[in-house]
Amino acid sequence: MKNNLENLFNPKLIAIVGASETKGKIGNSIAKNILELGFQGEVFFVNPKYEKLFEKKCYASLSDIKKEIDLAIIIIPAKFVDTIVDDAKNVKNFIVISAGFAETGKKGQKREDALLKISKKNKVNILGPNCLGLIVPKIKLNASFAGGLPKDGCVAFVSQSGALAVAIMDIAKKENIKFSHIISIGNKMQIDEIAMIKYLGNDDSVKVIAMYLEGIKNGKKFIKIAQKVSQKKPIIILKAGKSEKSQKAITSHTGSLVGSDKIVDTAFSKARIIRAKNLEEFFILIKLFSNFNLVNNPKTVIVTNAGGPGVLATDNFQNKSVKLAEFSKKTKKQFRILLPPESSVENPIDLLGDASDIRYQKILEVLDNEDIGNIICLMTAQDQTPTEKIAEVIVNFSKKSLKNIIPVFIGGEKIKKALEILNKNNIPNFSFPKDAVDALNRSYELQVMNYEKNNSKMKTDFDNVLDKNQDKEFVSQIVSSVKKNNRKILLFGEAGEVMKKYGIPVVNFINLAPNEKIHSEIDFPIVLKVDSDKVLHKTDKQGLILGIKNMDELDESLKKIRNNFSRENVIIQPMIEYEAELILGLKRDPIFGAVLVYGLGGIYTEVFKMVDFLLLPLSKNEIKRNIENSKIGFLFKKTRGKKVGDIEELTDLLFNFALLAKDQKEIKEIDINPLLIDKKGKLLAVDIKVIL
Amino acid sequence: MKNNLENLFNPKLIAIVGASETKGKIGNSIAKNILELGFQGEVFFVNPKYEKLFEKKCYASLSDIKKEIDLAIIIIPAKFVDTIVDDAKNVKNFIVISAGFAETGKKGQKREDALLKISKKNKVNILGPNCLGLIVPKIKLNASFAGGLPKDGCVAFVSQSGALAVAIMDIAKKENIKFSHIISIGNKMQIDEIAMIKYLGNDDSVKVIAMYLEGIKNGKKFIKIAQKVSQKKPIIILKAGKSEKSQKAITSHTGSLVGSDKIVDTAFSKARIIRAKNLEEFFILIKLFSNFNLVNNPKTVIVTNAGGPGVLATDNFQNKSVKLAEFSKKTKKQFRILLPPESSVENPIDLLGDASDIRYQKILEVLDNEDIGNIICLMTAQDQTPTEKIAEVIVNFSKKSLKNIIPVFIGGEKIKKALEILNKNNIPNFSFPKDAVDALNRSYELQVMNYEKNNSKMKTDFDNVLDKNQDKEFVSQIVSSVKKNNRKILLFGEAGEVMKKYGIPVVNFINLAPNEKIHSEIDFPIVLKVDSDKVLHKTDKQGLILGIKNMDELDESLKKIRNNFSRENVIIQPMIEYEAELILGLKRDPIFGAVLVYGLGGIYTEVFKMVDFLLLPLSKNEIKRNIENSKIGFLFKKTRGKKVGDIEELTDLLFNFALLAKDQKEIKEIDINPLLIDKKGKLLAVDIKVIL
Repeated sequence: MKNNLENLFNPKLIAIVGASETKGKIGNSIAKNILELGFQGEVFFVNPKYEKLFEKKCYASLSDIKKEIDLAIIIIPAKFVDTIVDDAKNVKNFIVISAGFAETGKKGQKREDALLKISKKNKVNILGPNCLGLIVPKIKLNASFAGGLPKDGCVAFVSQSGALAVAIMDIAKKENIKFSHIISIGNKMQIDEIAMIKYLGNDDSVKVIAMYLEGIKNGKKFIKIAQKVSQKKPIIILKAGKSEKSQKAITSHTGSLVGSDKIVDTAFSKARIIRAKNLEEFFILIKLFSNFNLVNNPKTVIVTNAGGPGVLATDNFQNKSVKLAEFSKKTKKQFRILLPPESSVENPIDLLGDASDIRYQKILEVLDNEDIGNIICLMTAQDQTPTEKIAEVIVNFSKKSLKNIIPVFIGGEKIKKALEILNKNNIPNFSFPKDAVDALNRSYELQVMNYEKNNSKMKTDFDNVLDKNQDKEFVSQIVSSVKKNNRKILLFGEAGEVMKKYGIPVVNFINLAPNEKIHSEIDFPIVLKVDSDKVLHKTDKQGLILGIKNMDELDESLKKIRNNFSRENVIIQPMIEYEAELILGLKRDPIFGAVLVYGLGGIYTEVFKMVDFLLLPLSKNEIKRNIENSKIGFLFKKTRGKKVGDIEELTDLLFNFALLAKDQKEIKEIDINPLLIDKKGKLLAVDIKVIL
Repeated sequence: MKNNLENLFNPKLIAIVGASETKGKIGNSIAKNILELGFQGEVFFVNPKYEKLFEKKCYASLSDIKKEIDLAIIIIPAKFVDTIVDDAKNVKNFIVISAGFAETGKKGQKREDALLKISKKNKVNILGPNCLGLIVPKIKLNASFAGGLPKDGCVAFVSQSGALAVAIMDIAKKENIKFSHIISIGNKMQIDEIAMIKYLGNDDSVKVIAMYLEGIKNGKKFIKIAQKVSQKKPIIILKAGKSEKSQKAITSHTGSLVGSDKIVDTAFSKARIIRAKNLEEFFILIKLFSNFNLVNNPKTVIVTNAGGPGVLATDNFQNKSVKLAEFSKKTKKQFRILLPPESSVENPIDLLGDASDIRYQKILEVLDNEDIGNIICLMTAQDQTPTEKIAEVIVNFSKKSLKNIIPVFIGGEKIKKALEILNKNNIPNFSFPKDAVDALNRSYELQVMNYEKNNSKMKTDFDNVLDKNQDKEFVSQIVSSVKKNNRKILLFGEAGEVMKKYGIPVVNFINLAPNEKIHSEIDFPIVLKVDSDKVLHKTDKQGLILGIKNMDELDESLKKIRNNFSRENVIIQPMIEYEAELILGLKRDPIFGAVLVYGLGGIYTEVFKMVDFLLLPLSKNEIKRNIENSKIGFLFKKTRGKKVGDIEELTDLLFNFALLAKDQKEIKEIDINPLLIDKKGKLLAVDIKVIL
């Protein structure tokens, strides 16, 4: 399969089925793109209507060519596609441009299913259907109906939207972005985002993988493959579909399945994928990652010939991981000698409005020996500013220095020539300080992530623990018996057992059968609650009584509850004094599988949504790091000499919870609410809902 | 003064002091800009070194001209400026370009003080010093050393940074932004942001006031003037100095005083100023507000010829006040007739990749009759897209329709000609969907704000209440006596009295003197705390005992506290059961005066910073609206049939608190923490710290 894709993306013999000489037809655009832009391979035309096309022989069918064809491009009505593909035994790779498949509804879906079946049977690769095609600038191949050939470079762009690919090529020219591939995956019937990440991950001509996606098909495999590839090269994805509204738009657009956006965020972060927040940021990130070094050192210096923009650039460092560098006294002294007395020798370094290229150069030379990672080089074209010479200073510096030097020339016409110099040398300008700072920050955060990853054992402790777990079977039996009783929800007694078997600490409780008397010693104050799968909101239905202080109150309360719920068990629990109230939950996502949700509980849970997510598989290392960076991370850090909870304990608990989610697939949903951190810092599940 | 500024910004007779024929000198650039760009007034040169300059007579001094000069531009070394200004009795308006004043340190500050004194004495206006100058395209006046003359338009741009003004002019040309004024206020010794807002507010040629500011001098007056002007025209401000770091940069840049950034946000929102988050957004907002109608109807439609960008645009509507419009069945039917079957007739309306200008036009015609406010017109240049014709459709539509039609053409070279057509007709393109949606949203939020404002009585209830307040004097006496005792902090007993006098409900408490016995009936459980101005953290020092349940425990606890604090009073308070824990505070800001801070209290206060701010003066209406939109607004809305607190009660409390802040200027800081909402929904101050 790997070799096969190699022929798809680097073909020597190409056939065009449905080529046309009629202007305005897609079959014409594609044929001309392949013929006229410099592709050096052999090209064949297939169209039973013609003897000749573009002054070359035209074949009636693919098999008539009597040669092994590397790639056939299909541009004929949808209903004929499957036969054409099935009959062509001399072709292993197809691009199906034709629309009229799954994107059009049920009938089209059937057509697509049939095509997929053929592709499996004949072991062929199909890009599309319903796609724009493929462009590989290095071999001057434009096998698409988008005009022109972008510059050859190191960015592979994969798009689920053909129109967006066209627009991106157009903007890229302006922004001097250069491509190794532009690939429209259309309905991604067979060659999907996973196949693309895998293939492009192994192609050394690709430095950055950039994707526009509307949906992800197989979440788990996607994460697994992306995790591997993102160790080697950055993967930048613009994923549409953040809001309910836009999920609607997607449904009518390609019919993809879309999971909740927060889960996508979690998956991307797990796979170390850089998610572009919008189209604008997408370009900015591609520019940074394809042209500059990854940011290992967060210390950044701003050099400017204008105070105002310097201040504005500084503002952008708020709440960032990249930081403004501080200079030593010695360094400041050096600056002082090189600069006019009115200059600021703090960071930002203000070279003043009359700064020459020499002044820039001298300061850069000093900075080259400092412990910094990045230099943001601001310039506005003032009266006497030698803009082109300053651009050249930057170009020369970048050639000999390992530091990232990011030009932010602010202006229009006056800086045009300077930008040309920068572009020619693959040092793209960032139009605004914010863009440069944000992008540097994203790059550094990725590095930090990778760094930690490489230093932790990558294997998931998961597989090790699994077999040791003796109680898996016991829990499965509880679940089965509940199902047998036609219940969807476990009783608290059952849920408590399940948790305990998986090592999740549950509050002590006494489970009283109807009419059963209290035998044990009771430690007041306590809580009484009815144990029923039907009473979802215990408070509303008077099935919950808090703060019972003595035996008399207990008797009275028990009577009261049993009056309302005569056939149910009653649970007696101690009132727990606590330091913090958490929640912990499990949901099943159709794309990404088990999703663990944990965060701050209590009355503000739904208002502030202070929750984080985890996706399986998980190692304890990963869980711990996730907690540290989570919204409740502060509970596990010392503040004023004290911390609320123990991170190791929550790590173990989440790990066990993940095991439970992995083993017990019949369980669809769990809510542990509250999960308390008691006064001694211990975790304790107090109420538990398990839904099958 | 108003007339005087009129002559400064619309001069007929101009004198240039320090004009020069030497290339590269500022005096040369300015002289040439005034002479060569079409200014029709009379120009005089002053320079004792020359007889003639630019083939015109050159005067030795301003008074030698023997005419009333509207505007003199001073470009001579700083030390000579005061004498020149003082001697020129025939000049009422000056621009002092010269640097070397307050921005350079103490010596310069003195020089600036002297100049200010002269300006007051002689009743003259001075723009600057240390500024770039002034440009008024309408009269073809470029009295600055920035080259060129921007197009005449309706945007007045005022900048505290000269270099930024130059860069902005350069970008503006590219973005087709047209100016009524470009004004560099430099050190804003006399003509500051307030004077500019006032003047430009009254100038009918100005539609939008745009400013770059690094500091604000007189916060209260600034808000007052801006509140008036922002009723008439939008004020967009890019205010630098968000972070500690950048405040440092400002100090070394212009020596402005900078208040905390959150307070600036509050002030701007109070004055209905639109704050641009960064330079990029600044341009986008200027583009929207200068070329489009203010957004009164939030319903927005996306029309697109490309699915992907349509989905991305939809994503940008998340958490916005502008909304995607929903179409009626009837409307959808109309679209269905006009569009190919594969088109989406939901919002976004997908016209498909082969959309012609006619298809755009037909859909727009339908939309013109719908109840919507804005149309975002997306276009990517696909194979056959008639980009220029589509631009023309938009131009024609905008001429006859009252709806805002915002073009978002995505691309580079391929859309260039289309953009030229749009620009020529003052319909600027937005490069990315996000930019258009964000800007529309800002415009709508401003309108909503204004609308509410106009419908509420603008007078502050404040002044009405003031005289009725009988207890002002009593509180002043408490404060005086504390000061007399050389204390900085009020005892709880005192603070409680202060609050009560101003109608702020305080928890019941008994104030026991040292050795005093308990006489009254006690309702347990209670809290004991020592009342001392020295014990700031009561918990740390064992001066606080919670949850005392009976008389025995009380005796024991009282003994314990008195052991540690023998000379202090002890406060007995009931333990309050509560629904929510708030905080309320007062700080004094050097720029904006009294700042009220209120929000969520409890253990997470400092972690989540769920607080909002209020600046004086305040009306109850304004307070109420602020609470509604605050981070604790949810506490006062019904959720599941229940609300935690009463908004009227908190409104009254905050209003009284504001009165206290206004009356008692000796009080520098107050912390009410916690301010509880008890089980009945009543507010109650439980601990109070008042600092003088």
